[in-house]
Amino acid sequence: MHVLIVGASGMIGRKLAQRLIRDGVLGGGEISALTLVDVTAPETPEEFAGRVSVENLDVADPRAVEGVIAERPDVIFHLAAIVSGEAEADFEKGYRVNLDGARNILEAVRREGRDSAYRPRLVFASSIAVFGAPFPERIGDQFFTTPLTSYGTQKAISELLVCDYTRRGFIDGVAIRLPTICVRPGKPNKAASGFFSNILREPLVGLEAVLPVSEDVRHWHASPRAAVGFMVHAATMDLAAMGARRALTMPGLSATVAEQIEALRRAAGEKAVRLIRSEPDPAIITIVEGWPRAFDARRALGLGFRADSSFDEIIRIHLEDELGGRAQ
Amino acid sequence: MHVLIVGASGMIGRKLAQRLIRDGVLGGGEISALTLVDVTAPETPEEFAGRVSVENLDVADPRAVEGVIAERPDVIFHLAAIVSGEAEADFEKGYRVNLDGARNILEAVRREGRDSAYRPRLVFASSIAVFGAPFPERIGDQFFTTPLTSYGTQKAISELLVCDYTRRGFIDGVAIRLPTICVRPGKPNKAASGFFSNILREPLVGLEAVLPVSEDVRHWHASPRAAVGFMVHAATMDLAAMGARRALTMPGLSATVAEQIEALRRAAGEKAVRLIRSEPDPAIITIVEGWPRAFDARRALGLGFRADSSFDEIIRIHLEDELGGRAQ
Repeated sequence: MHVLIVGASGMIGRKLAQRLIRDGVLGGGEISALTLVDVTAPETPEEFAGRVSVENLDVADPRAVEGVIAERPDVIFHLAAIVSGEAEADFEKGYRVNLDGARNILEAVRREGRDSAYRPRLVFASSIAVFGAPFPERIGDQFFTTPLTSYGTQKAISELLVCDYTRRGFIDGVAIRLPTICVRPGKPNKAASGFFSNILREPLVGLEAVLPVSEDVRHWHASPRAAVGFMVHAATMDLAAMGARRALTMPGLSATVAEQIEALRRAAGEKAVRLIRSEPDPAIITIVEGWPRAFDARRALGLGFRADSSFDEIIRIHLEDELGGRAQ
Repeated sequence: MHVLIVGASGMIGRKLAQRLIRDGVLGGGEISALTLVDVTAPETPEEFAGRVSVENLDVADPRAVEGVIAERPDVIFHLAAIVSGEAEADFEKGYRVNLDGARNILEAVRREGRDSAYRPRLVFASSIAVFGAPFPERIGDQFFTTPLTSYGTQKAISELLVCDYTRRGFIDGVAIRLPTICVRPGKPNKAASGFFSNILREPLVGLEAVLPVSEDVRHWHASPRAAVGFMVHAATMDLAAMGARRALTMPGLSATVAEQIEALRRAAGEKAVRLIRSEPDPAIITIVEGWPRAFDARRALGLGFRADSSFDEIIRIHLEDELGGRAQ
């Protein structure tokens, strides 16, 4: 089995590649070849028995995309995107990478299959940014997509394309809407959602973190490990049960900031909690008010997708996967 | 005021142009210039005091679209599309005309506005084909769009683009989802929805018509005159009340085939009804089972859009607008 990860240098892409290499199989099939591509060349993984190809690829370049698809990967993970803030700041780049990029992949697959049958499994990483306020306290599976960012618009459009290309028989596709990833490893960044991770990750290593919103803010989370689990399940499950509706909100953990902090206290004590400095930021408060708080992701649960069960588990996963098992 | 109709040779486009020429004004502003474009050149209207320009335009050609937009029309009606059956039969043409065509118009407007302010009103003709079965008996305003045709996919994507280009300030846009138009003038055609019009239009002039489904089939209708009324209202109303959610299901008349036939009986008597020949067509029955039966179009009603009140009214409009006022 040949697996292609488009966007393999990103956080989820790297963790997905690690998981596939560790497993060696995907849905019972042995992974004989792995192609990792991104706009910044991914690292070449060690300890993989099969054939590995690591390439520089700009999804906005249709010829380059055709070259990768000509290898006829059996499973394609499409995770490449420029993030929300950049898509808002650079309108043209956002549409070129996030919309035309997805379309280039779909078109390359369709054209590749014109002369001899080719219908790969395609897993598209979508986002809860396809939803825009106002919405109900818990957003159901049949709620409409009214994005309030160009990024969310590009994701919603790509979902529609994945559904239509699937219905037409060009791919066997599914679009999965990932929750906000927490705890995101790395350094604090300026993303409006960064604090959800910062207030756990930093205190766990003895560093201060800023909380720009009130503790009663509720949001929808998944650990990096759960997100990779969604990807693998989406790549291996029987999609026929989904019919033509191939876009799916992933399950997640709905929690308040206060609940996050209580889990931090249980994991690392009061001294860790004291490293969180409250510093209300009106701009971030306004942005976060427009974000989903919870979903009723019944359909995904029925299809076997599983989220983290608590913030204690999310913190434990971060400790295991990033910090050798324990807080410092 | 300069008004541009893209897709002016189609049935709604022609009737919209006629209405604008008759009114001479749009939302209180005098129409000084009217540009009518379509892939087959529209007829040059007579009896219009202002400047008229009639042009051949393929919306799939970005340069040609830029040329028309460079004239800076104040109001743009975008009605051009290839129909559902053709978009399904010719995948590439459907995406080229219906998706890239809409995007070409939006991009031309955005680029035109880069150097000096330009933000026209844009009314996009969408369709209830953005919805796909299964759905509730009455589809609400917040129900998700899961099209089951490439045409519906292209319309749903264009709606998302209209919303994002509006949110970003490039246009003041609105996408209105038209019901099935009844009574559609002209000859019977092979469209699966054709019979809804055929069973009224043909008997009203003494000709036979075939009914391929059972009389209890329920569907969502609007007269051509009501559809033109939606367009004019969308072009002139204050859209700020819609916020960022600029896609809107139009009100319509939910009626069964039996109710259509009863209205025909009242308008033209038993001899007209006897011209309807029942000839069940399993293919059409299956297609029509997947179509919406009714909407709860509360939001559009609240915004002042008005539908036909009965099939008696729909038939009366057809008699007035197409047959000089009476059945033959």
